[in-house]
Amino acid sequence: MNVQIKKQNNSTINEDELINLSKEELVSKIKALTAHNFQLKSIIAKSEITKAPKRNNKPFNFAKCTFRKVLLKILYLGWDYQGYVVQEDTTNTIEHHLFEALIKTCLIKSRQESDYHRCGRTDKGVSSYGQVISINLRSKLLNNDQDNIKEELDYCTMLNRVLPCNIQCIAWSPILNEFSARFDCKSRVYKYFFFKGELDIEKMRIGSNHLLGDHDFRNFCKMDVGNGVTQFNRNITKINIDLFHKWGSNKEDYDSYVITIEGQAFLWHQIRCIMGILFLIGQNRELPEIVKELLDVDQNPRKPEYNMASEIPLNLFECNYDDENIIWNYSEISLNMVLENLKKKLTYSSIKANMLMYMINDLEQKGFGEKKKTYFSDFLLQGIKTKNYVPVMKRQKYSLEDKIKHYTKRKRIEINNQ
Amino acid sequence: MNVQIKKQNNSTINEDELINLSKEELVSKIKALTAHNFQLKSIIAKSEITKAPKRNNKPFNFAKCTFRKVLLKILYLGWDYQGYVVQEDTTNTIEHHLFEALIKTCLIKSRQESDYHRCGRTDKGVSSYGQVISINLRSKLLNNDQDNIKEELDYCTMLNRVLPCNIQCIAWSPILNEFSARFDCKSRVYKYFFFKGELDIEKMRIGSNHLLGDHDFRNFCKMDVGNGVTQFNRNITKINIDLFHKWGSNKEDYDSYVITIEGQAFLWHQIRCIMGILFLIGQNRELPEIVKELLDVDQNPRKPEYNMASEIPLNLFECNYDDENIIWNYSEISLNMVLENLKKKLTYSSIKANMLMYMINDLEQKGFGEKKKTYFSDFLLQGIKTKNYVPVMKRQKYSLEDKIKHYTKRKRIEINNQ
Repeated sequence: MNVQIKKQNNSTINEDELINLSKEELVSKIKALTAHNFQLKSIIAKSEITKAPKRNNKPFNFAKCTFRKVLLKILYLGWDYQGYVVQEDTTNTIEHHLFEALIKTCLIKSRQESDYHRCGRTDKGVSSYGQVISINLRSKLLNNDQDNIKEELDYCTMLNRVLPCNIQCIAWSPILNEFSARFDCKSRVYKYFFFKGELDIEKMRIGSNHLLGDHDFRNFCKMDVGNGVTQFNRNITKINIDLFHKWGSNKEDYDSYVITIEGQAFLWHQIRCIMGILFLIGQNRELPEIVKELLDVDQNPRKPEYNMASEIPLNLFECNYDDENIIWNYSEISLNMVLENLKKKLTYSSIKANMLMYMINDLEQKGFGEKKKTYFSDFLLQGIKTKNYVPVMKRQKYSLEDKIKHYTKRKRIEINNQ
Repeated sequence: MNVQIKKQNNSTINEDELINLSKEELVSKIKALTAHNFQLKSIIAKSEITKAPKRNNKPFNFAKCTFRKVLLKILYLGWDYQGYVVQEDTTNTIEHHLFEALIKTCLIKSRQESDYHRCGRTDKGVSSYGQVISINLRSKLLNNDQDNIKEELDYCTMLNRVLPCNIQCIAWSPILNEFSARFDCKSRVYKYFFFKGELDIEKMRIGSNHLLGDHDFRNFCKMDVGNGVTQFNRNITKINIDLFHKWGSNKEDYDSYVITIEGQAFLWHQIRCIMGILFLIGQNRELPEIVKELLDVDQNPRKPEYNMASEIPLNLFECNYDDENIIWNYSEISLNMVLENLKKKLTYSSIKANMLMYMINDLEQKGFGEKKKTYFSDFLLQGIKTKNYVPVMKRQKYSLEDKIKHYTKRKRIEINNQ
């Protein structure tokens, strides 16, 4: 508040007072203000990241080029990015880097003219082993030579050379012009990684099996009413919980599991909401039957409040297409470099994990932390935990109708304010 | 360059021109400048992190306090810090946070008056499970009551409440006034974590055993001539390479090892230089006997250039003291919180490692990366790798004398410049 007032005082000037000053006094005032301005500009200049001046290259002549429609398979470690989709207030998105690379390599003229579709929108922090996009790229072959795939530009290597090492193109396929990575996708496969900890995996399996098939998942997602989503029926075709790595006979808590969920399409935060509920089942805080209750929207039309699970362990692992014409072309050189980078990241993540585990073991051997059992999955559940557990079905609930009402109301208020 | 010129133009004013202007024109100029100033200030205000105004509390009255000399055992995950020791150009050091906490809790009046010693200076990125400092802290007991340890302030809990969660005090011990964490330390134990990868552990063991005992380690350190270190004899009393975790029968590469090195004192970068050479031995690029050659400073008085190993896997694990009076007091509540944080960090590091391993496995099952064997330890070796391996003893060398000459010369130049 003080700062605000001070700023306003500094910016308002009293014209009457000024006109009574001598010319010399006015000039000296101008000098002081100019010096101050210079000082302020230096502060701004220092705080700004020094940007290299843009080279004024001759624009690439696309008029002479042929184009072809392709799918690109993109791998990314999304942990340090703000999500897949471009955003106005940050350049730290996968899509931003992708288009920067596509434009830098002159493979497209602009996003608008590239007939671009993405298969999945992944949230902040989510990774992908197999995101797929469809796009119109510059070709070095004439239209009637484009079957000769081996002669085509090495799209992966070209892009990977300018992409950050945590966003890499791992394969491409020619497709028909009307094909869309989004609308022609037949199934999406997500994987979610977690520690066994105190979880009862068998109960989680029972709960997860209730999710199979076509259901109204409004209680297992963030209802995206703002974007016009009011239909919540989705079909989960496969759900498996598998042991990925057994740590050792005496440390079952550290066994690693991965859950695989497949379906044609998913709702906003659907996997993370599912994981939130499955963790509560594994922790024996809820019965596996709660899944059935939540799917029964006639009986339970209002979504109870519960914490969804962290985004970090989530991976959009595969996007599948029926089309027989899709033949993924992998560039071996490119893939070896991708592998090298993954192994480097693995080395450092593992070393950190091992050092942490070593320290934990030593503290536990000294007799600390024994009385208190750790729910590793609690670290993945976001939001506030109440001291005394309140069963999910007894918590505060809100319905789709509440949500629509809220949204309409908010929108009206915004309009009035403008 | 353009920006620079523009700035200067804006800041210089032509007084003669100004004096020829009418008063009205001058006033309007002042108005424009003031508005511009306001605009610039808004930009600065936006770019600055909003700082809470400092409370003008009455200073804590230390005059009434008794003090006692203690040891504090500090655990830190150093990966995201700029090192242990305070630096002028950053606040992102362990010591900075430690003193901020000591002052915030009014346990000391100032660093200068606290009779402070640290046991080990750890580099940027290095962690510690058992760093020890000696310091004079405020006590709530009268001098003759200070044997009643259980009645003393709960130093760990007090400090941990204001310390970042990755820097925590895990124990304290009363000590005699003249005791120093640095000079009374009897042994320091470092641990270094790594993947087996393609390493021949047996050869590394043979090489490491040559390090045992009292040697001149000038070829195994960064000679810190600038700080007056010209004596390089140190005594390594223990060195073990142990399997920490067996990944699984079919993936020996992913087995985790930890090397433990103990000695009374160490040179700058000594462990990381040792690891650099041991990795080359494990990779079968050097023979275990190279260790003997490098320790023979009569035969090899000049240090050959080689890459030292990364700082991330390094941990100052223990600082040991002879004194029978040292009784470490652990605060159970505090330690449970430390354990919780370590387990949380472990969860996320492990999940990332598992996701990476899952993707690597999938790519390798598709047949990629098979021809090219990965040296995981190469990811830990810093600096440039030449395409064709040059044996260490055939590389460019520099001696302590070169180093002293270089330093004296540089210093002279600096003095002349001033």
